[in-house]
Amino acid sequence: MTAHPSIPDLIARRKPGHNLQADFYTRPDIFEADMAAIFWRHWIYVGVEPDVPEAGDVFVVDIGRASVLIVRDDDEEIRAFHNVCRHRGSRLVNEQKAVVGNIVCRYHAWTYGLDGALLFADHMGEDFDKSCRGLKPVHLRSVAGLLFVCLADDPPTDIDAMAAAMTPYLAPHDLPNTKIAKSVEVIEHGNWKMTMENNRECYHCGGNHPELNVPLFAYGFGFSPKTLDEAEAAQARRYENLVTDAHARWEAAGAPSREINHLSDRVTAFRTERLPIDQAGESQTLDTRVACKKLLGRIKDPAMGGLSFWTQPNSWHHFMSDHIVTFSVIPVAAEATLLRTRWLVHKDAVEGVDYDLDNLTRVWEATNRQDAELVEVAQTGLRSPAYEPGPYSPYTEGMVNDITGWYLDRLAANLDPVDA
Amino acid sequence: MTAHPSIPDLIARRKPGHNLQADFYTRPDIFEADMAAIFWRHWIYVGVEPDVPEAGDVFVVDIGRASVLIVRDDDEEIRAFHNVCRHRGSRLVNEQKAVVGNIVCRYHAWTYGLDGALLFADHMGEDFDKSCRGLKPVHLRSVAGLLFVCLADDPPTDIDAMAAAMTPYLAPHDLPNTKIAKSVEVIEHGNWKMTMENNRECYHCGGNHPELNVPLFAYGFGFSPKTLDEAEAAQARRYENLVTDAHARWEAAGAPSREINHLSDRVTAFRTERLPIDQAGESQTLDTRVACKKLLGRIKDPAMGGLSFWTQPNSWHHFMSDHIVTFSVIPVAAEATLLRTRWLVHKDAVEGVDYDLDNLTRVWEATNRQDAELVEVAQTGLRSPAYEPGPYSPYTEGMVNDITGWYLDRLAANLDPVDA
Amino acid sequence: MTAHPSIPDLIARRKPGHNLQADFYTRPDIFEADMAAIFWRHWIYVGVEPDVPEAGDVFVVDIGRASVLIVRDDDEEIRAFHNVCRHRGSRLVNEQKAVVGNIVCRYHAWTYGLDGALLFADHMGEDFDKSCRGLKPVHLRSVAGLLFVCLADDPPTDIDAMAAAMTPYLAPHDLPNTKIAKSVEVIEHGNWKMTMENNRECYHCGGNHPELNVPLFAYGFGFSPKTLDEAEAAQARRYENLVTDAHARWEAAGAPSREINHLSDRVTAFRTERLPIDQAGESQTLDTRVACKKLLGRIKDPAMGGLSFWTQPNSWHHFMSDHIVTFSVIPVAAEATLLRTRWLVHKDAVEGVDYDLDNLTRVWEATNRQDAELVEVAQTGLRSPAYEPGPYSPYTEGMVNDITGWYLDRLAANLDPVDA
Repeated sequence: MTAHPSIPDLIARRKPGHNLQADFYTRPDIFEADMAAIFWRHWIYVGVEPDVPEAGDVFVVDIGRASVLIVRDDDEEIRAFHNVCRHRGSRLVNEQKAVVGNIVCRYHAWTYGLDGALLFADHMGEDFDKSCRGLKPVHLRSVAGLLFVCLADDPPTDIDAMAAAMTPYLAPHDLPNTKIAKSVEVIEHGNWKMTMENNRECYHCGGNHPELNVPLFAYGFGFSPKTLDEAEAAQARRYENLVTDAHARWEAAGAPSREINHLSDRVTAFRTERLPIDQAGESQTLDTRVACKKLLGRIKDPAMGGLSFWTQPNSWHHFMSDHIVTFSVIPVAAEATLLRTRWLVHKDAVEGVDYDLDNLTRVWEATNRQDAELVEVAQTGLRSPAYEPGPYSPYTEGMVNDITGWYLDRLAANLDPVDA
Repeated sequence: MTAHPSIPDLIARRKPGHNLQADFYTRPDIFEADMAAIFWRHWIYVGVEPDVPEAGDVFVVDIGRASVLIVRDDDEEIRAFHNVCRHRGSRLVNEQKAVVGNIVCRYHAWTYGLDGALLFADHMGEDFDKSCRGLKPVHLRSVAGLLFVCLADDPPTDIDAMAAAMTPYLAPHDLPNTKIAKSVEVIEHGNWKMTMENNRECYHCGGNHPELNVPLFAYGFGFSPKTLDEAEAAQARRYENLVTDAHARWEAAGAPSREINHLSDRVTAFRTERLPIDQAGESQTLDTRVACKKLLGRIKDPAMGGLSFWTQPNSWHHFMSDHIVTFSVIPVAAEATLLRTRWLVHKDAVEGVDYDLDNLTRVWEATNRQDAELVEVAQTGLRSPAYEPGPYSPYTEGMVNDITGWYLDRLAANLDPVDA
Repeated sequence: MTAHPSIPDLIARRKPGHNLQADFYTRPDIFEADMAAIFWRHWIYVGVEPDVPEAGDVFVVDIGRASVLIVRDDDEEIRAFHNVCRHRGSRLVNEQKAVVGNIVCRYHAWTYGLDGALLFADHMGEDFDKSCRGLKPVHLRSVAGLLFVCLADDPPTDIDAMAAAMTPYLAPHDLPNTKIAKSVEVIEHGNWKMTMENNRECYHCGGNHPELNVPLFAYGFGFSPKTLDEAEAAQARRYENLVTDAHARWEAAGAPSREINHLSDRVTAFRTERLPIDQAGESQTLDTRVACKKLLGRIKDPAMGGLSFWTQPNSWHHFMSDHIVTFSVIPVAAEATLLRTRWLVHKDAVEGVDYDLDNLTRVWEATNRQDAELVEVAQTGLRSPAYEPGPYSPYTEGMVNDITGWYLDRLAANLDPVDA
C-alpha cells in the first residue's frame, strides 16, 4: 500500500499546467529532499540589514535543521556562519537576537570572534590547531538591504544578475536606512509550496481578502477576457491605461517600474513590477493613504504605487513610498511552514507620532490570517486518496505554474544520486 | 534490530486461536495497509439517516486521510462524495455538519451541485470541460437507516445479502424516523482492532462494567461449563429457557429475534440476535426501564429486549423499544481510534418531557469510558518486546477470534502487490 | 538526500578521540538499535532496594517499550518480571508504585503470584496449562542495594566482578537500610548518550554549575598542565597530596577509596573513586556540611568525602557519610531521555528533625536543571548539516571517550544480522 513512487518518477509523471501530486506536499522524505536540494543549495531570503543594525548584533535564522548566525562585525560588515560549535556541536546562540562582543559557546567556553575565528579553547593540548576550528562560513548577499544566504559551497552565480537588475528598483526606498516596526511569525499548517503557490495568484483574493481588496485593483492579477461584459471590459482597458501612464510617470521621476520576469528561466529566479494602488493610491493600508508620515529615502511623492518583488523559492516584498512589507517563508516540516513578515519604516520615524502601528500592519495581518486558513484547508484536502491534480487557470495561475515548474527543475538538478 | 517481518509473513505465522502479533497494533505501515485494504475497500458504517434529516444537510466523515461528504439532495436522496475540490484539492466542507444550497469551495469559488456536478468555475478558459470535473462519488447504502459507505470502485456485493437479512430485524425500530439525542466522540489510545476486539467479548464485563452489568445477563456472553457449581448451572439453564421463550414471543409479535451469524464467512460480515434484558427487562438503562416514553416505530411492548447488530470491521448497535445506541469505529493512527456513539430516540420525543438525557446515556457513557481505559492498558502492554500472543478462551472469546480471522483474510485478499 | 549510512559504516568511520557523528544522536532506527543492543542486553541500573521496602511492594520501570515489574516477594526476595499479561498482553501494573497481594490483570482477572506463577484464569477450558503461562522473568541483581536488571536471556556474567569489587566500597554506606527522601524525574531533550557524555566530564562545570562548584575541587576533573601558572601549579600539587592523604586515612578507617577503572575494558563497565570534598569537606551541599544528622550505616566521621560510582551505560552515584544521590538514565526516544534522581538518607532519619529536604537536594536539583539545558543546546546544535565531530580534550574528556568507545564496541557486538 505504501510503495511510494520515487522522486524522479513523480517529476516525470507531472502533468503540465496542473497542480503537483500530493506526495510533494506530504511526504517527509520529499521534505528532506526539498531542504537539501532547494533550501540548502539556492539563495534564500532570510531578513534585512536592519535585523542587525549595530556592530555586535546577531540574528539567528534556522533553515530546517541548519541554523545560521547573521552577525554585524566591528567593521560594519554583515557576515553569516553556521550556528554550531566546532567542539561538541552545541548551538552557539540560542535566542533569535543577541548582542555580543565575541561568540562564546556556553558549554565549554570556546570563544569565536565576529569574523568566525576561534580565539580561545581551554585544555585542548599542544597539538590542537585553533586555525582549523573557526566557525564554518555561510555565503551572504545583501540586495539593496535584503539579505540572502546560500548554504552551498558553490552558490548559484546569477545572484549577480538579480542584484544588478533589482538594485535600481529597490534603491529609492533606501531599505538600509529603515527600521523594523513590527515582525510577526506565523506557522501555517501546510507544505511550504502551498504557502508559496497561494502567494502566486490572486484568483482567491476576491472571496477571501476583504482588507487587501481595498488597495488592490481587481484587474491587476489576471482574468478570463471572454467572461467580461462590456462594462467590465471597459474597466479592464482603463486599468491597463492606468498602469502604462503610472509607469511613465514613475520612471520619469527616477523610479524604475516596468515588469522584469525571470521566474521560470533563472536559477536565482525573480519577478518585479511597480503597480498602482486603488482609491487614494498611496499605500497598502485600509484607507490607501500612507501609514507613515516620514517617506522612505528621498521619495517626495506618496503615490509611488507598490513595487512588488517575488523570488523563488521563498519570498515576496512590497515597497511603497512610506513603508516596506517583506515576507520570508521557511519550511518547518512536510506539513508546517514558517511565514515571517516584517514591516519597515524610515529609521527616524517615531511610533505614535509618524505612524500608528495598527494602521501600518492591519491589511497584511488580516491577509496573512486568511491565507494561513486557506493553506490549511488546501493541505488537508489533498491528503485524500481521492485527490488528483487539477488544472491551473491559464489567466490567473501563471505564477503558480512558474514556481511549480521551477521547483521540479531545480529538484531534478540537485537530487542526490541515491534519490535520482 | 528493526527488520520488520512482511505483512504476508506475519499473516502466515499467526497462531490460530491466539491474539494477533503486536506488529498489527503498532506498525504505521500496517495501519496504512489496514486503511487501504480494509477501510477503503469494504462497507464502513459511518452514520444514520438522521445525520442529514433535511435537503441541503451535509455531514462530513473522515476515514483516515479520506474525507467523505454525505449530502441529502433536494430530491431527498442521500448521496456521498469525496470532500475534495477538483481544482487544487481543497477540502470543501471543513465543519462536521453544514447546511448548503450548493457546495462552494472557499478557495476559488468552484461551485458544485448537491448531485456533485461542477456548476461554476471562473477564469478557466474555453478548453475547460466542466463535465469532467464533478465531485468524485462514493458508494453509499442505507440499511434500514444505517449508512454504510464504500470507497472502492467495486464494492463488495454481499451488502445486498446483509441488507435483505437485517431489514426485517431493524425495521420495527423505524430508525429513519428517529433523531439524534446525543452524539459523542472519544479518541481511544489504541489500534482500531483493539477497540473492536474489546467490543467482541464480555469476558471483561464482570470486573469492569458495573453499569452495563445491570441490564446485561451474566450468562449471555459465554462461560466455561466445567467451572459452574450446581446452583450456577441451574441459573445458566434458566437463562437459556428465557431466551428461547423471549424469541418465540417477540417473533410472534412480528419482531425477528433469532441469531444470524455471518461474522466469519462473508466479506460484508455481520451477526445479529435479539437478547433479553435483566431486571425490569426493558432497556439498557440503570433501572432497566425505558428511558424514553415515546416508543419507536409501531412498538407497543416496552420489553422488546435489545436487538444487537455487529458488523465487520467497524460497528455495533443496540436497538431497544425506546431508543437505539449505535457505534462507529474509525482508525485515526496506528495507536489512536475514534469511537463515535449516537443515541437515537423517536423524532417527536421531547427532551425533559419524554426522556432525560442523562438517564438515556448513562450506561454507555460509563461503559465507553471504562472500555477506553482497557483499550489503552492493553495497547500499552503489547508494545513490550516480551509480549507474545496468548490463547483466546474457547467459551468467551469466539467473536474476537471471528474478527481477527476475518481481518487477516480480508487483508491478505486486498494487499497491494508490493506488500504481498 | 536521505540515504543514511548503515550502522556498521558509521562505526567504522568514527574518528577516534572525536565526538560521535550526529546520526547516533538523532536517527530513530539507531535509537531502536540502542535499545535492542545496549539497553536490552546489558545490566541497566533501575533503582534501589528501598524502592520496594516491604513484601508486596511493586515498582514499575520502563526501558523503552519494555516494562519491568520489580517486586518484593513474601519471602523478602526481590524479583523482576515483564509487566505484560500472558493472555492478551495488557500492562499489568499501570502505576509506578503499588502494593499488592497477587498481581491481578484488570482486563480479564488473570491472577499471578509474586513469584510470577499464574494462579487463576477463568473460562480457559481443559487443555489450558497454567504452568506455561507464568510471568516472564527478568534477571535482577542487587549490588549492595543498587538494583540492576538485564532483559537478555544470557546476561553478561562480569556483573559478578563488578559486584565483588564494588561491595566493599559501597557497604559502609548501608544502602539497604536507607529510605528515599526524594525522587525526581526530568525529561532531557536530547539523546541518552548526550546525557551520559555530559555526566562524564567536568570541563563544563566551571561556567555552568555554581552550586556544584562549592563542594567540588576544580582540579579534581582534569586540566591542561601547560596552561597553569606557578600559583595554579602549586594548587594542583596540593590537591594531589590531599587526595593521597585522604585515601590513606579513609582506607585505614575501613572505607576503600582508591580508583578502580574498568570503564572501557569490561562489558559490565564501571569506575569508582572516593574523592575529597572542598571547604568543610563533608557532603555535596551548599555549605559542604552533612545534610542529615543521622549518618549512614556505622559511619562516625562526617568527612568521608564522596564515593563516586559510574557505570556504563546508564548510571552514576555519589555516596557520602550522610546521604546518597543516585542517577538512572533511561532513553525515551532518539531525542528525549529520562533522568531519575533519588536522594537516600538513613531509614530512621526524620524530615524536619534530622534533615531539611531543600538543603539535602539543592545542589543536585540545580545541577540537573543546568545539565538539562546544556544537553538540549548540544542536541539542537548537532542536528545541523554543518556539524562535524570535534576533538575531545585529552585532559578533561577521557571518560567521554570511554563511554563513546564502549558504546560503539557493544553496539557492534550486538547488532542484529540485518543491521550488521
